[in-house]
Amino acid sequence: MSSPARRRLRDEVVTLAHGAGGKATRALVEGLFLDELASPELAELGDAALLELGGERLAFTTDSYVVTPLFFPGGSIGELAVNGTVNDLAVAGAVPRYLTAGFVVEEGFPVAELRAVAAAMARAARAAGVAVVAGDTKVVERGKADGLYVNTSGIGALAPGVQLGPARVAPGDRVLVSGSLGEHGMAVMIARGGLALEVELESDTAPVHELAASLLRLGPALRFMRDPTRGGAATALNELASQAGLAVRLAEEALPVGPAVAGACEILGIDPLYVACEGRLLAVVAAEAAPEALAALRSHALGAGAAEIGVIDADPPGLVLLDTALGGSRIVDVLVGDPLPRIC
Amino acid sequence: MSSPARRRLRDEVVTLAHGAGGKATRALVEGLFLDELASPELAELGDAALLELGGERLAFTTDSYVVTPLFFPGGSIGELAVNGTVNDLAVAGAVPRYLTAGFVVEEGFPVAELRAVAAAMARAARAAGVAVVAGDTKVVERGKADGLYVNTSGIGALAPGVQLGPARVAPGDRVLVSGSLGEHGMAVMIARGGLALEVELESDTAPVHELAASLLRLGPALRFMRDPTRGGAATALNELASQAGLAVRLAEEALPVGPAVAGACEILGIDPLYVACEGRLLAVVAAEAAPEALAALRSHALGAGAAEIGVIDADPPGLVLLDTALGGSRIVDVLVGDPLPRIC
Repeated sequence: MSSPARRRLRDEVVTLAHGAGGKATRALVEGLFLDELASPELAELGDAALLELGGERLAFTTDSYVVTPLFFPGGSIGELAVNGTVNDLAVAGAVPRYLTAGFVVEEGFPVAELRAVAAAMARAARAAGVAVVAGDTKVVERGKADGLYVNTSGIGALAPGVQLGPARVAPGDRVLVSGSLGEHGMAVMIARGGLALEVELESDTAPVHELAASLLRLGPALRFMRDPTRGGAATALNELASQAGLAVRLAEEALPVGPAVAGACEILGIDPLYVACEGRLLAVVAAEAAPEALAALRSHALGAGAAEIGVIDADPPGLVLLDTALGGSRIVDVLVGDPLPRIC
Repeated sequence: MSSPARRRLRDEVVTLAHGAGGKATRALVEGLFLDELASPELAELGDAALLELGGERLAFTTDSYVVTPLFFPGGSIGELAVNGTVNDLAVAGAVPRYLTAGFVVEEGFPVAELRAVAAAMARAARAAGVAVVAGDTKVVERGKADGLYVNTSGIGALAPGVQLGPARVAPGDRVLVSGSLGEHGMAVMIARGGLALEVELESDTAPVHELAASLLRLGPALRFMRDPTRGGAATALNELASQAGLAVRLAEEALPVGPAVAGACEILGIDPLYVACEGRLLAVVAAEAAPEALAALRSHALGAGAAEIGVIDADPPGLVLLDTALGGSRIVDVLVGDPLPRIC
């Protein structure tokens, strides 16, 4: 794997852009956290760290959830907190097993809502085959939080022989996605109200562990998996291109974008490639395995809308390109600002 | 182990008391989280969950840190976040190995302070022999947090044969503490200012993993360990008494309380038994092993002030009693309100 130069952090204060998953987030992570908290596992910047403990290989990951509103069509911060961490383990090639849950609650938060969140977490955990095994609750004064923030951390078991990552991606490999893009982000944006959009849209929040397991059966033909959350598919694929030192070439007409998301994105002036999914899987597979991989994804209810959306190229290294329906091509750049703050 | 009836949650909104570690916290945990997120590991309510993964035994824990101020004499939220999670693993009998770090940052937070926190975490991690292997950063708008909240989760390896817990505690066992009580809580309270106390006091934040390891060498004579954080030694020992169905009888004159903490507590009207430590270890050991255990603790710089502070009795089950210097005896009850909010 090539090692692109680390970004430096030039800002003096933290801004919303640092939480958006794009350029500013990378500067914060590389220019501050990697600088200070150097560890080989952290430097991999994967969805989950891959570790050894007593001879066993395991994956370990963490995510904090600050989504607003807490409840939205298709789910809540509860489903999100479980599925997001389950998915980070799954795309690392692990079988998700155990989660912890940390709650920061604002004084005055309704107990009934907290119970609804916990119940949603329990349902999502059952669906994903994981157990919530430890927890922590802190309460802060009124005005010191926004109702509720949830952290989940998770561990999973890596099967012997699983080797995934940007370093395994090669020119000619195919890029697949398990379903349509942007439902989660747009559902949350619309749930905030004030957009005057009459669109029925549900978050796609779901566990992708079964989709991931079906692709792992391809063996070494499966190169890389990721879930396109904050910053969307564009951000996940830019990270891949940068870490692999290769190009990702997407075909615009192959991108699965539903009409409701397409319409809402057009009105808001947002490219659906940058809109978060919370139940989709991106995978890079060897060209000859692409039909089998697509069939595997499509045989699962959550992968019914799977599509091949692009190919890996040698040049230009580090970039994501979009071949448009009109025969042109444009760079799909790394996100700079944050068009969709607090989406997860 | 007896299974005392679960507390019910009757409140309609979350209050600061639910975050204090006392009665209200227990009601929230037992009446809401255990209710909804039932798992055998969670029901143990230990400092860390004990799990199996691929034939290996491991401990897994999580804690969120909302301390205010973020920097205080003797440390910062950074040391606290690492040591707190390291200690939860250590008192579970595990060797702490890997941590994750999740940051919720308020827009406008100074990057220099975030760097100082990360640097403190790195120093603390090195001192405790753990690696920070995965992280996550979310940014929320101004007024939606209080500068910075940090979650750390951790995993550690359990040596074969380690069996600790309230069920192993028996009448006649001795209660030890590795050092003086209450420095952390009082240092933070004083750092908030406005108390007009001229006291020099530093937090005791430190990793207790080496102290714990030295006690593990006692084998089955070591029954139980815990770090007396939120709610102090009184809260930790009340949980032990309740879970073991036994009494804990403390000797007031044996309690190690420094003059600065004693003075500050007297002025504030707070019993030092309820004040958080962040670098102390409570241990219950067989009576015949108590001298060796004390010697082991005292041979370490962090255990120089170790003391035997009490004994386990059969009666009255579930209660902590304090034999006073004057020959009387009183119940050390579970905390109801929260005299020291956001201490960790």
